[in-house]
Amino acid sequence: MKNENVWKRKGGDGAKASTAGRRAPWVEIKTFTFHPTIYKSMLGKVSADAQAGDIVTVYDRKGEIFGSGLYNGKARVPLRMYRHGEEAFGEADFLQLIDRAIAARRETMGLDAVTDAYRVIHSDGDGLSGLVVDKLGVVLSLQVHSYGVYQRLAEWIPYLKEKLDATEAIVEVDPKIADLEGIRIDQSLSDDIRFAKFEEHGIRYEADFRDGHKTGFFCDQRDNRKRFGEFAKGKDVLDVCCYTGGFALNAAVSGEASEVTAVDLDEKAIAQAKRNANLNGQARVSWTHCDAFSFMRQMQRNGRQWDLVNLDPPKLIFSKDQQAEGMKKYEDLNQLACTLVKPGGVMATYSCSGQLSAEEFENMAIRSAHRAGRRLQILDRTGAGSDHPVMSNCPESRYLKAIWSIVW
Amino acid sequence: MKNENVWKRKGGDGAKASTAGRRAPWVEIKTFTFHPTIYKSMLGKVSADAQAGDIVTVYDRKGEIFGSGLYNGKARVPLRMYRHGEEAFGEADFLQLIDRAIAARRETMGLDAVTDAYRVIHSDGDGLSGLVVDKLGVVLSLQVHSYGVYQRLAEWIPYLKEKLDATEAIVEVDPKIADLEGIRIDQSLSDDIRFAKFEEHGIRYEADFRDGHKTGFFCDQRDNRKRFGEFAKGKDVLDVCCYTGGFALNAAVSGEASEVTAVDLDEKAIAQAKRNANLNGQARVSWTHCDAFSFMRQMQRNGRQWDLVNLDPPKLIFSKDQQAEGMKKYEDLNQLACTLVKPGGVMATYSCSGQLSAEEFENMAIRSAHRAGRRLQILDRTGAGSDHPVMSNCPESRYLKAIWSIVW
Repeated sequence: MKNENVWKRKGGDGAKASTAGRRAPWVEIKTFTFHPTIYKSMLGKVSADAQAGDIVTVYDRKGEIFGSGLYNGKARVPLRMYRHGEEAFGEADFLQLIDRAIAARRETMGLDAVTDAYRVIHSDGDGLSGLVVDKLGVVLSLQVHSYGVYQRLAEWIPYLKEKLDATEAIVEVDPKIADLEGIRIDQSLSDDIRFAKFEEHGIRYEADFRDGHKTGFFCDQRDNRKRFGEFAKGKDVLDVCCYTGGFALNAAVSGEASEVTAVDLDEKAIAQAKRNANLNGQARVSWTHCDAFSFMRQMQRNGRQWDLVNLDPPKLIFSKDQQAEGMKKYEDLNQLACTLVKPGGVMATYSCSGQLSAEEFENMAIRSAHRAGRRLQILDRTGAGSDHPVMSNCPESRYLKAIWSIVW
Repeated sequence: MKNENVWKRKGGDGAKASTAGRRAPWVEIKTFTFHPTIYKSMLGKVSADAQAGDIVTVYDRKGEIFGSGLYNGKARVPLRMYRHGEEAFGEADFLQLIDRAIAARRETMGLDAVTDAYRVIHSDGDGLSGLVVDKLGVVLSLQVHSYGVYQRLAEWIPYLKEKLDATEAIVEVDPKIADLEGIRIDQSLSDDIRFAKFEEHGIRYEADFRDGHKTGFFCDQRDNRKRFGEFAKGKDVLDVCCYTGGFALNAAVSGEASEVTAVDLDEKAIAQAKRNANLNGQARVSWTHCDAFSFMRQMQRNGRQWDLVNLDPPKLIFSKDQQAEGMKKYEDLNQLACTLVKPGGVMATYSCSGQLSAEEFENMAIRSAHRAGRRLQILDRTGAGSDHPVMSNCPESRYLKAIWSIVW
């Protein structure tokens, strides 16, 4: 092992006595934090027998048990905490965390009544650091960020399938993360399936796994899609950055909009949106393959305005040093979108950039509106659906923000 | 936040503008701000003919028209802005603002489909600074904070009644505000009525005007009351600071809770809650007249826990210098409430203190839970219903915050 933090039992120098009788394998942490992800600088000694993927007992610097986690010495996040407290954590406890996450969706949130597509496991938000599972109809779509999690999928996937009445699973690991974590991709974990079909709030969708996890469907906007549709009745609607058409279809199908224009630069997304429209026998949406900026500038020049406008751009801020650049794009998009709302019409604007706080996002939206000579009468602020929970020891995992306004 | 609204012009602030040819009566403002309430220190010259309650044209220091507002030289807020821009503002424009506010509730928000009790006019949130109107069934409950508004009520009340199918109105002015604004109470503006009956999301309520505007009903929690009920099916429910019983009744009636315990120290509120329960033929709620702290401490000692807990204390922070004291109370209440939730149960916690930001409130809730040795899996953050909108030139008017969590 190359890890310089590794403490070898043979050849120790006095610390040996204090580690006698520890539950091995073990690690020590230098920082007292309830955060689930422990970085290298926060990690102390590691027992010689600790292997990548092991459940380790975590000791504090006083030698007291702090909790249990998954260890991977080479990774950027060498320790992911799964339990705080003395009680030992075993393989069965992972399954219990999975059960909890499923019960939260099915029993507490009652999601089966409105959709068969939801996030089943939201990583740290469910105390299952490194694992994301979406259920899209009978297909499970997994994203993995941890070697220890990946190692256990052969056991977990059949368990998840049974509990969720799913027949197929697709596992996706970002190549960069696979490299950082030392994950060797096992193709046999994924079933050979390309499409998933499902329904949300009475609207049918299809996901295409051709491009891996980028399925073209985000469960996090479920409640916002429905709400957008509720403003649409008899209205002339514009959906900017419509992606695969969820907002536009809620406006057109259940929302009974008089007319919907939906715009996106991503050709594949527009093609998927059209297939989704066909699944719902919906021809009222005009799908436009165009850059959002160019489209909005042209419409501004034409003096065209809509009753109801949606602006759901992709993530525009990826890191702190990109904040200014991303913010400028948000401002430009929001300023333009404002001008396309008829006075007294409604606009919904979103950001999925976790770097941007709810307050910063609202300030940006207000500033952009005022620069456009418009005023926002803010009706509500919302976020991701409750199947994307935020655990109190990891509040920075919140990312999706929405602002609903009447634009004057 | 204020910076977004304050607009500093470059150039000659010392320019002595000629007042000849101005639209009288007029005032000058020294600060360029889009905020609707202008304090004394921000006000410049005032034309000799400007009377309390007059619509005045507002000029900037360069002598250009900035907008129009209501003037009251003696008041703490001597100028309330009703329009920015050159176009003159007349009496009919107030009625147009009233029409807008009503259309927003009835058409945009579609509130008539779920209730006959909602806030019709939310002061600065509807561009009608100084006026709050709640519709409770056929009764309008008005709160007034401005002399100019009060002066016009004899005209506006019949207009509001007609537009809202209301038969009665009750006008309330806080005696301190009446004094500050120079309002002389005209009893004839209020109808002689004591009770209002109304329905919200299928649940019947009664408001009692015996104690003036303190009707025992807050429309702002409408959506939160409904949502609370949605978590209640078959559950054992505790409602702390239940006031007149809205949350408890949503849990018991539409929510089909197995059992509901509701606690409040306000004897009149509990009496009203019981009458509300009777209106719904509901005997499943156990109404308890007790201090929230004492009750929760006792239950903690007894080891009693519930599946679903609501904590909606009255306003606890009234000013910046009371922040620490109020915060302590929030912390104590939240820490206690956490311990009364079964692991895996749900808690909803609220703050209606405008001094506390959404971020500060969340930090407090997390800190309190961690101190109680519990963890919050935050499902959602919500606020007041959309009939309590926040105008972008007055964002600090937001006050109600809710956090929904599974408590581990």
